[in-house]
Amino acid sequence: MRRAREVELALGPRPDGVSLQHWLYSEIRAAILSRRLQGGARLPASRDLARRAGVSRGTVLAALEQLAAEGYLVAVVGRGASVAADLPDQAPEPPPSSRPAAASTGARLAARGLALIEETPFPVAAPSWPLPAFRPNQPDVAAFPLDLWRRSAARRSRLTRVDLLADGEAQGYGPLREAVAAHLRQSRGIACEKGQVAIVASVQQALDLLARLCLDPGDAVWMEDPGFPGARLVLAAAGARIVGVPVDSCGLDVTAGRRLAPNARMAYVTAGRQAPLGMPLALDRRLELLAWAEAAEAIVVEDDYDSEFRFRGLPLAALKSHDSGDRVAYVGAFSKMLFPALRLAFVALPGALVDPFAKALSLTCRYQPTAAQATLFDFIAEGHLGRHIRRMRLLYAERAEALRDAASRRLGGALVIPPILMGLDTPAFLAERRDGAAIVRRAAERGVEVRDLSYYAVDRPAPAGVQLGFAALAPAAIDEGMARLAQALEEVR
Amino acid sequence: MRRAREVELALGPRPDGVSLQHWLYSEIRAAILSRRLQGGARLPASRDLARRAGVSRGTVLAALEQLAAEGYLVAVVGRGASVAADLPDQAPEPPPSSRPAAASTGARLAARGLALIEETPFPVAAPSWPLPAFRPNQPDVAAFPLDLWRRSAARRSRLTRVDLLADGEAQGYGPLREAVAAHLRQSRGIACEKGQVAIVASVQQALDLLARLCLDPGDAVWMEDPGFPGARLVLAAAGARIVGVPVDSCGLDVTAGRRLAPNARMAYVTAGRQAPLGMPLALDRRLELLAWAEAAEAIVVEDDYDSEFRFRGLPLAALKSHDSGDRVAYVGAFSKMLFPALRLAFVALPGALVDPFAKALSLTCRYQPTAAQATLFDFIAEGHLGRHIRRMRLLYAERAEALRDAASRRLGGALVIPPILMGLDTPAFLAERRDGAAIVRRAAERGVEVRDLSYYAVDRPAPAGVQLGFAALAPAAIDEGMARLAQALEEVR
Repeated sequence: MRRAREVELALGPRPDGVSLQHWLYSEIRAAILSRRLQGGARLPASRDLARRAGVSRGTVLAALEQLAAEGYLVAVVGRGASVAADLPDQAPEPPPSSRPAAASTGARLAARGLALIEETPFPVAAPSWPLPAFRPNQPDVAAFPLDLWRRSAARRSRLTRVDLLADGEAQGYGPLREAVAAHLRQSRGIACEKGQVAIVASVQQALDLLARLCLDPGDAVWMEDPGFPGARLVLAAAGARIVGVPVDSCGLDVTAGRRLAPNARMAYVTAGRQAPLGMPLALDRRLELLAWAEAAEAIVVEDDYDSEFRFRGLPLAALKSHDSGDRVAYVGAFSKMLFPALRLAFVALPGALVDPFAKALSLTCRYQPTAAQATLFDFIAEGHLGRHIRRMRLLYAERAEALRDAASRRLGGALVIPPILMGLDTPAFLAERRDGAAIVRRAAERGVEVRDLSYYAVDRPAPAGVQLGFAALAPAAIDEGMARLAQALEEVR
Repeated sequence: MRRAREVELALGPRPDGVSLQHWLYSEIRAAILSRRLQGGARLPASRDLARRAGVSRGTVLAALEQLAAEGYLVAVVGRGASVAADLPDQAPEPPPSSRPAAASTGARLAARGLALIEETPFPVAAPSWPLPAFRPNQPDVAAFPLDLWRRSAARRSRLTRVDLLADGEAQGYGPLREAVAAHLRQSRGIACEKGQVAIVASVQQALDLLARLCLDPGDAVWMEDPGFPGARLVLAAAGARIVGVPVDSCGLDVTAGRRLAPNARMAYVTAGRQAPLGMPLALDRRLELLAWAEAAEAIVVEDDYDSEFRFRGLPLAALKSHDSGDRVAYVGAFSKMLFPALRLAFVALPGALVDPFAKALSLTCRYQPTAAQATLFDFIAEGHLGRHIRRMRLLYAERAEALRDAASRRLGGALVIPPILMGLDTPAFLAERRDGAAIVRRAAERGVEVRDLSYYAVDRPAPAGVQLGFAALAPAAIDEGMARLAQALEEVR
């Protein structure tokens, strides 16, 4: 018996960086799991094991104790350790250590799981850097006053109280919610109080939760057509039946929406600056949309993603500023106002959704990181947010001009860029019919990133053209990019 | 006509803190929306308006321009501004400024929205502070080396490159994922690589996404009974059919699970330390569970919430360390290891779920804040995480002893506390039948927070007793709390 056991306990070589104790533990564990050591078999005395393995007896005892705690061994007083007798026969082989188990094909996704991953509107890998011309939807992070932010963060971290390390409120850090409400009152004309505001990680998270709260699978949602795929896909993944509603020069065609899906439960609208076409939703459309929402008891989600950056005058009042019926969930993010990797966004909610939203957020995520919320609060309270937005309005306005100027000099009328009144990017319409996908491809070969407007199509073809970002690009980069884009356009006739 | 218009344009008083321009804008807007100014009506000349309002003509022009941009006015060359003619009749009244619209009862929640908010396992408001004895599941944030953390954060923010402000990877910051993989290899015996790791905000977010990826509504999930309501409710809200599987002294009764729901698509298990009863899942059960999961093609979610804190020897190997069939999604969080408000957690995924998980995370949330991820990476790379956990093991072990000691001195056997081998809290079983809810209530009246074990019940009654947290409490607070708990127990006979 003794000899058989000793054969079974042949110890493999110790890999680099593995402690003696862990090596011994792993070898014995592997021997048991592979049935080289059978249930009930007695282990050699710890003294003998120590001698054979060339380790101290303390190390052996620690390894055996670990194995006993994990159920591989049982200790019998006076007789040392034995292999546990009750391991099931179907014990799987342990995976080879420090390599992941082979990717199985077994993890079956659910049908709705497939809907979650069917299309990815955002790059899953970190996007390339530095930013190429003309990637849309990008603020200029290089113009962000990082020093001021660091100062707020450092001050905050000096002041950090221990209770800010403990769990926070699901709805968000109170002072930040108050600061957001004040900003929305002042800058967007929204009658808004702290109690209505929830802090979320992103617009995507807000849309996801609103859909799951307000929609049952199959419920219809009005989606601007063309419109933002990030919204379309997250709503569809939540089971919404997406109804593309055409957009004309006044924005969402509410009359068409009433015809296509009068009983929709939700409408998604970029009222401040239609994504991707750029016009604000006209006043009569706004009022018509709200009247419909009241009658249909639908929720209107206003995604105000970049209309803070209006280049002349003040930003236009938000759709929610007309929301006497309390049907609008207004969603905004600090990604464009400050920088994307901050990952803080906010919702001004209809009264009836405040409590449900906080509960749903708590269940599916809990709350946003307190340190970042507190730093952001300081940054706003010190006036830096307002100043930064005002500076960026001037900077981006110059760049919008530079874009239109470069286009008119370089493109010979091939792309028509309407006046740019606000935002970080613009549509550029093809003067004559050309293959948009080919333009995107040819531009990419020249290091220029443009987005085909068909990316935004829902139920009908989008206007022929591309989307060009300008806000993050210095005028020289705009001009250089435009020269390359001109070459690409040349090639696609 | 002129006179009528002038009557309609009666201007209300200017509220404090509102600029002249905004006041004028608001008054005219309100007059139009309320039909005091009718469609087509001509406004007085800007010069007259300026005189009447007592403001400069520039202010009037800025206000009128804003109103024109928002569609309230149309400008006719040579004739000044007129009210837009095409406002719909059903224009809602604007909400009174700087008060939120009255909470409507109109926001109908969807059926599955109600499931999201039916029960709230976490406090939606920030929990009271300082921490009362014996709130469960709390690390000692006062023992967190905040100075070291601040140093990592400051160093990181000095080094921050601009590209770290731009969008990051959905799966998480690469260096942090590598550090997490190394930690899991070393501390939990998991054969794990960076590519399998995703960084999430919380265990809740991981559970939510795993459910939505792997379960269609109505699919069965094994849930430990008693078991963690945070998991039960988020899985149920995602449409899972929860099957409570009994727990005995060896943890989840896998044989019972196979009988109750052989074709479940998922099993949720706290293998390291059963929540709330405290025992690890026995080895034979582990192997049986994995064998079932392979045969049923089910996913096992291992929630390893606090078994890092094992008081003697090393932490037990994770269930996932046996996962040769690649069926286990291992979920852990830094909330207990570091501090809750950090809001970073991680999943070690089966190979087949890596890509779907990253895509689903990207669609429903995007990615976690880069600065916090980078600071955490530095903190781990500098060895602070490992050291902090080792320090806390010693500290929490002392407090576990203090708890058992105080209980045996103070409670006269009314509560039976089993040996505490790890974790932040312990079950305490009632020696004789008493009303758990009454104990909780009486204790609360004395400022002591205990949790009835029935909080964890799924399909069958939980053992009679309460859960006591000890890790965040100094021995004196433990003793004082126990004295009060003894009084509460006295009153509930």
